[in-house]
Amino acid sequence: MSDGCCEETHKDSHYSPGYYWLGNDTLKVPLVLHRENRQRLAKSILTSKDKDSIEPNSFVLFQAGKSTTAYDTDHEPLFRQEKFFFWAFGSDMPDCYGVVALDSQENPTSTLFIPRLPAEYATWLGQIHSKEYYKKIFLVDNVEFADEMTAYLKNLNCSTLYTVAGLNTDSHNHTEPLTFKGIEEFKVNTTLAFPYVAECRVFKTPKEIEVLRYSVESTCKSHMQVMRKIRPGMKEYQCESIFLYHAYHDFGCRNVGYTCICAANKNSSVLHYGHAGEPNASTIRDGAMCLYDMGAEYHGYTADVTCSFPANGKFTEDQKIVYNAVLDASQSVIKAMKPGVEWIDMHKLAENRILSGLLAGGILVGSLEELVENKIGSVFFPHGLGHLLGLDTHDVGGYQGDAKPKVNSLRTTRSLIENMFITVEPGCYFIDHLLDQALADPSKARFFNRDVLARFRNFGGVRIEDDVLVTATGCENFSKMVPRTVEEIEAYMKH
Amino acid sequence: MSDGCCEETHKDSHYSPGYYWLGNDTLKVPLVLHRENRQRLAKSILTSKDKDSIEPNSFVLFQAGKSTTAYDTDHEPLFRQEKFFFWAFGSDMPDCYGVVALDSQENPTSTLFIPRLPAEYATWLGQIHSKEYYKKIFLVDNVEFADEMTAYLKNLNCSTLYTVAGLNTDSHNHTEPLTFKGIEEFKVNTTLAFPYVAECRVFKTPKEIEVLRYSVESTCKSHMQVMRKIRPGMKEYQCESIFLYHAYHDFGCRNVGYTCICAANKNSSVLHYGHAGEPNASTIRDGAMCLYDMGAEYHGYTADVTCSFPANGKFTEDQKIVYNAVLDASQSVIKAMKPGVEWIDMHKLAENRILSGLLAGGILVGSLEELVENKIGSVFFPHGLGHLLGLDTHDVGGYQGDAKPKVNSLRTTRSLIENMFITVEPGCYFIDHLLDQALADPSKARFFNRDVLARFRNFGGVRIEDDVLVTATGCENFSKMVPRTVEEIEAYMKH
Repeated sequence: MSDGCCEETHKDSHYSPGYYWLGNDTLKVPLVLHRENRQRLAKSILTSKDKDSIEPNSFVLFQAGKSTTAYDTDHEPLFRQEKFFFWAFGSDMPDCYGVVALDSQENPTSTLFIPRLPAEYATWLGQIHSKEYYKKIFLVDNVEFADEMTAYLKNLNCSTLYTVAGLNTDSHNHTEPLTFKGIEEFKVNTTLAFPYVAECRVFKTPKEIEVLRYSVESTCKSHMQVMRKIRPGMKEYQCESIFLYHAYHDFGCRNVGYTCICAANKNSSVLHYGHAGEPNASTIRDGAMCLYDMGAEYHGYTADVTCSFPANGKFTEDQKIVYNAVLDASQSVIKAMKPGVEWIDMHKLAENRILSGLLAGGILVGSLEELVENKIGSVFFPHGLGHLLGLDTHDVGGYQGDAKPKVNSLRTTRSLIENMFITVEPGCYFIDHLLDQALADPSKARFFNRDVLARFRNFGGVRIEDDVLVTATGCENFSKMVPRTVEEIEAYMKH
Repeated sequence: MSDGCCEETHKDSHYSPGYYWLGNDTLKVPLVLHRENRQRLAKSILTSKDKDSIEPNSFVLFQAGKSTTAYDTDHEPLFRQEKFFFWAFGSDMPDCYGVVALDSQENPTSTLFIPRLPAEYATWLGQIHSKEYYKKIFLVDNVEFADEMTAYLKNLNCSTLYTVAGLNTDSHNHTEPLTFKGIEEFKVNTTLAFPYVAECRVFKTPKEIEVLRYSVESTCKSHMQVMRKIRPGMKEYQCESIFLYHAYHDFGCRNVGYTCICAANKNSSVLHYGHAGEPNASTIRDGAMCLYDMGAEYHGYTADVTCSFPANGKFTEDQKIVYNAVLDASQSVIKAMKPGVEWIDMHKLAENRILSGLLAGGILVGSLEELVENKIGSVFFPHGLGHLLGLDTHDVGGYQGDAKPKVNSLRTTRSLIENMFITVEPGCYFIDHLLDQALADPSKARFFNRDVLARFRNFGGVRIEDDVLVTATGCENFSKMVPRTVEEIEAYMKH
């Protein structure tokens, strides 16, 4: 007697035939999303300049992540799927492969190869499902065992395997070598497919957009819980725990896209604070500026939102100077964003607005033109304005398409195109070693009002980060629900 | 002008000179704990049968974990330190090395080698500290840069480096190869040190015991929050989020020692439920048996506690049969544990008590002797009674010392010795494929009452897991605060 409800009808878990869903009010994601991605990929290759080089019976081959253990132990860190594979198949199972046949622009044949699980899997890890079960869930044409992949592909007279392998322009890491037992029996092309897959990932489909909207809104609501509950005297990590709790408990987001940055006091000037070496462990002081950069992930798609606010809910005049300079940058960029706009220009616009605010606040002196010319912007705003966002926090494709040559600190130099999803995250920080460098350089030092600057040395920093979709005529800010103006933040935090 | 408070006096973060502490009511851990571990190691080698083979100017060499990124991306999973290195040095920094000179039984010279950080580290990741700063924090004799390790050791006329390398008997993985640029200039012994380090890790010092007591009590209190808040209709993962929140928010435990197993309904018969493939995603049914196996980690030391209870707070008569059989096993073992007792005998004792309970409940028929002889125990209790616990969930050393030959499913076959810390986790599960196998085997089938068994097919399972220190005269159960008897659980969950 087996639990019939689980095998063939609705499985009361995260996957059911054609859907990913965590129940209650969480988003029900149709897995046809991934079939559409496979279709987009086949179409993009079969209509490209490379189309005539594609042989019959050829396949694009994806490799899932492998299950791992920590060091020499049997501790298995919570598995997170490789994102190229996930984009194409939507499965969170380790040790799989998947192929998309280049046999049709509209309806390419897809096969998922799953590991053959030993009988004791059922004792330790869960029910062993049939191939048919996975076929129904993931809406693929075939499911086979991974150890039969070579025989299966040979039987189909496979001519060429196009592996998804390439360079990540943020990490400068190459994808891991894609291999399987028997791969040497096939012709393998390791270069053609990657840019097509990466370019497809840059543009989000309506179904992907709905998942991203859910991740971002879940993230915003969890940020707002932190803003309601924070009090001076708490530890930074307690705010992290509040965010993680709501993202998971209320919205089903078990993972975050990146380690939570929960910086108070001067720590808000450390751009990627919060890692194991700086684990959000300071006590939040009264009067401190807080910078919370946290993004929840749902069905693999992550948000990336930053809220900055005073720990006690009331801005000082100095905090208003810096905050409003960054807010001006954010609002100016979002107002200007639309297809055709150059991202480099948006970065410059943000930098100009921040510098203008620092001029108005008396921290800097001189003309805006002189400040720009002497690169004062990157003293306060040393990172890029934003990055593509999707399955990865720093999503792929920033240096493809019409990208201009690499600009220091910018993660993309493309012009905007409809359905790009990108963060807008201007920031202004008081970072000792960058200020000291600038003050030691006569060409820069003359623009600083040292007396005023001294007041800000322990200020920390401000970052305002939104997740923005480029639309046909402009853009849509998915994270607009968080309180953003000084007045909105003070009113919200009063409660 | 730099933030003077951070550099030389108290740093308002997790480490300060000689201590790890997360503030407020969390435990302040004296880092002399790790100096004691280094001393224990030197003494154990220098008083061993191998002592005459140890050359002057020789060192035991430890290697910290390396910082990593996920797949090809720049996403850095939250770093977790390699536990042999952590045991000896207590530092959570990646990319370090450490040596303990075998120059003294009582006060061996220790040196920590840290990575040389680039200037931009200060912009992105945090303040760059001096060697002197780390020396004061970690109570080592010297701190040097890792890229100068070869020169430093040559300058000390290093004769032999004993690397900490060996086989993990739970994972059957070997430690990662320990290497550094220049290692070929030294004589390296890769076999001698490992069993000494592993054996030292088996026995907990008073300072380690206090950390473990804190981790276990924090874990128990977080479990109890789940027991108070659980309601039928909730998702299993919502209970996970409650545990994680309290462990982190209330007790500073950012990590868990292993992925939370939050099983309700029939899922409680999947021993390691909760992984990415079975992500605690079912809806908790009214009347379901729940099995929550979760352990919080503080300063690297982890708890491992399981609570089983009915989702609605009220046991059915059938649930009492199974629960009380397991509780009887747990209580009988804890009562019997003391130095000299064989762990294999404790496993057999637990199995006998469970089988007795199933006989009394009418699920099995026959005599206890026949059931044992025909291996009915492992149909219901297919895992070992428990495992050593410490920095790793399955801590090292289970098959050293006086260990008897490997017994299927047991993680140790040693006899108990004072200051061993070990889990006691009897369980009873109704696992379809094990029951089906047994019913198909005539030598086993005759002991089952099929009519009664049918009632239990969708029961799931029960595990009761405590974390127990072996004392001079018996043992101390660190997790005794969680409600354990049927009456205690029902009374506690009423509120």
